[in-house]
Amino acid sequence: MVLLDKEGNKYLVRVEDRELQTNLGVLNLRELEGLEFGQKLRTHLGEEFHVLPPSLPDLFEKLKRGPQVVLPKDAAQVVAHTGVGPGDLVVDGGTGSGFLAIFLGNLVRPDGRVYTYEIREDFVKLAEENIERAGLAGVVTVKRKDIYSGIDETDVDLVTLDVPEPQQVVPHAERALRVGGYLAAFTPCVETLQLLCQALRAHRFAGVKTIECLVREILVRPGATRPSTEMLAHTSYLTFARRI
Amino acid sequence: MVLLDKEGNKYLVRVEDRELQTNLGVLNLRELEGLEFGQKLRTHLGEEFHVLPPSLPDLFEKLKRGPQVVLPKDAAQVVAHTGVGPGDLVVDGGTGSGFLAIFLGNLVRPDGRVYTYEIREDFVKLAEENIERAGLAGVVTVKRKDIYSGIDETDVDLVTLDVPEPQQVVPHAERALRVGGYLAAFTPCVETLQLLCQALRAHRFAGVKTIECLVREILVRPGATRPSTEMLAHTSYLTFARRI
Amino acid sequence: MVLLDKEGNKYLVRVEDRELQTNLGVLNLRELEGLEFGQKLRTHLGEEFHVLPPSLPDLFEKLKRGPQVVLPKDAAQVVAHTGVGPGDLVVDGGTGSGFLAIFLGNLVRPDGRVYTYEIREDFVKLAEENIERAGLAGVVTVKRKDIYSGIDETDVDLVTLDVPEPQQVVPHAERALRVGGYLAAFTPCVETLQLLCQALRAHRFAGVKTIECLVREILVRPGATRPSTEMLAHTSYLTFARRI
Amino acid sequence: MVLLDKEGNKYLVRVEDRELQTNLGVLNLRELEGLEFGQKLRTHLGEEFHVLPPSLPDLFEKLKRGPQVVLPKDAAQVVAHTGVGPGDLVVDGGTGSGFLAIFLGNLVRPDGRVYTYEIREDFVKLAEENIERAGLAGVVTVKRKDIYSGIDETDVDLVTLDVPEPQQVVPHAERALRVGGYLAAFTPCVETLQLLCQALRAHRFAGVKTIECLVREILVRPGATRPSTEMLAHTSYLTFARRI
Repeated sequence: MVLLDKEGNKYLVRVEDRELQTNLGVLNLRELEGLEFGQKLRTHLGEEFHVLPPSLPDLFEKLKRGPQVVLPKDAAQVVAHTGVGPGDLVVDGGTGSGFLAIFLGNLVRPDGRVYTYEIREDFVKLAEENIERAGLAGVVTVKRKDIYSGIDETDVDLVTLDVPEPQQVVPHAERALRVGGYLAAFTPCVETLQLLCQALRAHRFAGVKTIECLVREILVRPGATRPSTEMLAHTSYLTFARRI
Repeated sequence: MVLLDKEGNKYLVRVEDRELQTNLGVLNLRELEGLEFGQKLRTHLGEEFHVLPPSLPDLFEKLKRGPQVVLPKDAAQVVAHTGVGPGDLVVDGGTGSGFLAIFLGNLVRPDGRVYTYEIREDFVKLAEENIERAGLAGVVTVKRKDIYSGIDETDVDLVTLDVPEPQQVVPHAERALRVGGYLAAFTPCVETLQLLCQALRAHRFAGVKTIECLVREILVRPGATRPSTEMLAHTSYLTFARRI
Repeated sequence: MVLLDKEGNKYLVRVEDRELQTNLGVLNLRELEGLEFGQKLRTHLGEEFHVLPPSLPDLFEKLKRGPQVVLPKDAAQVVAHTGVGPGDLVVDGGTGSGFLAIFLGNLVRPDGRVYTYEIREDFVKLAEENIERAGLAGVVTVKRKDIYSGIDETDVDLVTLDVPEPQQVVPHAERALRVGGYLAAFTPCVETLQLLCQALRAHRFAGVKTIECLVREILVRPGATRPSTEMLAHTSYLTFARRI
Repeated sequence: MVLLDKEGNKYLVRVEDRELQTNLGVLNLRELEGLEFGQKLRTHLGEEFHVLPPSLPDLFEKLKRGPQVVLPKDAAQVVAHTGVGPGDLVVDGGTGSGFLAIFLGNLVRPDGRVYTYEIREDFVKLAEENIERAGLAGVVTVKRKDIYSGIDETDVDLVTLDVPEPQQVVPHAERALRVGGYLAAFTPCVETLQLLCQALRAHRFAGVKTIECLVREILVRPGATRPSTEMLAHTSYLTFARRI
């Protein structure tokens, strides 16, 4: 569950015999026992924290990060361009910390499934912990397998790729996707992007489109409204294509 | 259903006694009868079209547009910042053409619900046609009601606002949202944004954050890869806040 | 000279026996004779136009355009990255309409010089007309010569390139530039950019840096301040390097 | 003068009895005596540094910074929008570290002049040192005077403003500028921008236009070309207007 103070600061916690230091005082996490969502927990200074069910953004802020993760701003563009939703069957290549798989698992649940391929044992373990924490263990499955060597699933609605050589997966995705299904790939560098698009055009894919998504924060303050001076200037190019 | 040619061009059609002119020849839509998804329809010139179930992006390209619509790139940021998903209860203020309501309906189905408020009779009618066409009639309900005067629903997971004076809805959203629920508002101009943020800070909302989302297309072509020279330079500022 | 009305609309004119239709009435351009800058000319409806010396932005809006031109926003970045100024000797490859040469001529005058190379006779003629019109005939010289085959000048402060294969000019620029001088190249596509940077690294250049410059207009209007919905999303990548 | 190594690293130095530690060894700055630009200085390890005349970008990297400075990317937009050049008379409000005044001084020299107003004694001193260092002491003059209380100069070609309340200077700029002259103002926040534009519209200014300029670096590397992940997401809104 999530503890949220009046400033919007949050802590992802569970009932346990532990004290939690916050900037508003000390919380006894044993006292969470029996509390329902919406109720409050008090610090030793009497400050209140709301007990909430964790939202996906809460989880993304608090999950363990190993390798570079796909950010929500980019993962969300997959929804915009493919319409992925409840009940869909998704194959995800390059699990990493599992963030994209979890993001998609949250959208296809409860009847859809996400199978995410990863070759590094340490990433498999990290991702499985994060999936468990996100409550998506029944929806998202990590497979310790090299997606360059093939995709087991068929009639797939969406294949997402965040791997160094996505062009190697294009023939496998062609076979795995249903007609009308989508491929979505994340490539940080132009050279990989070029190889990917070349491969897509050589296989049964149409509507190949590449975008980049920039999100800038605006600081809205009385008398001093302005964009933030910092932003993430590049994550990945996002390429979408449709199986025909 | 959608007819997709080898170039990625598409037509949203249904079985009827009508001929459809395409750039690859004439299609007889009566011949769609009995065809399954994945099969092909031929033009009088012998060119093939794949018969596909429509995806959400297909629908968004083909739905009827009345007033300015919330674009998928921005609607998707609501997913990124609120984690809206299957089973959620959503209230949407300012239906317009119904695009945002349909986008959200597709994500909360089958058990979630979207109630979208609109005062203009012509927009109500247009949105209902679009919702019907999107197959979401059981999930998304248009209410001909002024959201400035109140929200009927309670224990709401997400309130989205695309209205001229969102600040007027803030007290209603405060009452309608469950603790931990999110408000997401679209404001094209800075002045409205300022009034909205002022209202949010005066009510039980935390974590107020405003962003803008820019999407640029990259044209990946052999020997001539470059960003598109055109892009939508502004749609709306997006503000997110959480009910505490 | 420039005629400017109260709304900011402008006309680039000279004294001649001609009537000019404006949205505020008809002007007799013969009446300009003897008027000094700062005085006014009236239309037949009595509306006033200010008689002004043309500024460089005035000229850029009114010069004849043939091929794609380097825009002021990008030309200005050459100033930011190279410090080009009065007295400098500049070689410009790929004259086109002459805009970049004129922009630079205006900065190095009266003692500096810009030699601009162009192979197409029609562009040479167009550029010479524009340079004449900008009053920079003594400062900017168009040479009908292929810059791929060599640069005549030596001890050059700045070489600017807006040609299809800038990498071909790198060895010539190496010989032409003084130690510490700058090369600035405009390349619309990534592939050319890659070839250019490879060539620069293989020659006596240091501090190779590539940027893109995006300018977005903000519409500041009472109660409706917002960014413009349109912007030029890409012109050229700009690469700067320094002769060592 | 500037010492530049083969990697593009640079040091702004003068002849003096001092040793300079570099990452290629120790330099004895006394040895610079008698060297001409283009010659080389060696470290105790035998590594070479080129002796160059400092360019404006060299200076901007090495000048002393006190308050927030106007960056070259933005200063350059003043050139793009006003055509400021050799011989122009410029008034600059809010000297700060003197960067904008120096940038403009470099463009109007040798016959033009920049008068820059500053009320803080420490900034006056800092700016004067920087101007001296840039070799522009005869061109740029710092006046310890409040520009809110008036501008001494008349027939001015350009007034630049980087002060907290630029709207207070608009009436003074109206009197100081020649007809056809330009005002250029830097405002970080929207609220100030709104007050400025309101003031400009209430005085004899036309063609009021506001922009923001974003510069993103592209890292061009074999097999790994991509935009930089970092960029300055906001500096100031830039507003231009013309005296009529």
